[in-house]
Amino acid sequence: MLYTESLSKLIDMFKKMPGIGHKSAVRLAFNILSLDDNQVEDIVKTIKNAKEKISYCSVCQNLTETDPCEICSNHKRDKSVICVMETPKDVIALEKTREYFGQYHVLHGAISPMDNIGPEELKIKELIARISSSDEIKEVILANNPSIEGEATAMYLSRLIKPFGVKVTRIAFGLPIGGDLEYADEVTITKALEGRREIQ
Amino acid sequence: MLYTESLSKLIDMFKKMPGIGHKSAVRLAFNILSLDDNQVEDIVKTIKNAKEKISYCSVCQNLTETDPCEICSNHKRDKSVICVMETPKDVIALEKTREYFGQYHVLHGAISPMDNIGPEELKIKELIARISSSDEIKEVILANNPSIEGEATAMYLSRLIKPFGVKVTRIAFGLPIGGDLEYADEVTITKALEGRREIQ
Repeated sequence: MLYTESLSKLIDMFKKMPGIGHKSAVRLAFNILSLDDNQVEDIVKTIKNAKEKISYCSVCQNLTETDPCEICSNHKRDKSVICVMETPKDVIALEKTREYFGQYHVLHGAISPMDNIGPEELKIKELIARISSSDEIKEVILANNPSIEGEATAMYLSRLIKPFGVKVTRIAFGLPIGGDLEYADEVTITKALEGRREIQ
Repeated sequence: MLYTESLSKLIDMFKKMPGIGHKSAVRLAFNILSLDDNQVEDIVKTIKNAKEKISYCSVCQNLTETDPCEICSNHKRDKSVICVMETPKDVIALEKTREYFGQYHVLHGAISPMDNIGPEELKIKELIARISSSDEIKEVILANNPSIEGEATAMYLSRLIKPFGVKVTRIAFGLPIGGDLEYADEVTITKALEGRREIQ
């Protein structure tokens, strides 16, 4: 046996993490062994702490350490718009633009029968409850990913939300800025054509 | 603030690990948050366990869970040869060849004044103690890396060991098997020329 038992387990643990192959896992495992006890204790604490302190916001279902989260409890943000996202990472991507000042709702995934993910597995119930219990909400922006699952989820949601008399919109798809029409795929070009707007 | 405090700390922790950039750190941190409590508990245990159980072999200074290590306590291995390595990973690389049946000694680094690593920081004292206290040892193979630091350490060791009347050898440097002379660097080609041997 090349590696000791505990070391093998440590390597296997790293291998289970996303984007970590065998060589990276070995490098990370040896790195852990090279640290002193305090540094290892810090790593363990940081992992435990993050897992314990971070939970879902009871309003928007985004990750948060306070409930409601900073965005939901910020009175300067527009309460009339909810942007529906698949993951907390998507919220961060949109926040980075500094162009959106409404509310969010995180579904934590997309409907995918292949992976046994139905509407019940997502935070759809919570979204409908928000919309039905508030008179403030005027628009729901569906920012699900432009994938088969994302599109299916967006279609499903739009049918659920429209009866509440709320405007339902979908984010635009087309050529990415800085992209090159020559290298864009057919579906993106088709979407860009479909979504064309008159120049004023 | 885009990330909550605990999440930022988790991302920063991953960023300190070797070969992990910002994007990988974010992916790994979100992966931790997506795991259930038992899985996180397993990760924490695996890290703690590895750190607690693995220590240095009192003989060869390699990483081990038993003392002396499996190699040092294996009576089938040749006690007359010690191969000096920089790291435990180097031992694994040599063991994988299944061509070496002697002992090892792990220095845990190389002399590097730039990084404040002198002979005292390495397991050199332990190596000299082994050689001076045993009559069995006939040869010490210096398998330090072909770097400036590795060469300097090998030179330093050879001067220390020779007075004990032990044969001191250095592993060969030259073209790697499967390599191409056309693409080899000048230093490697020079070493390959210097190390040429007569064909019998």
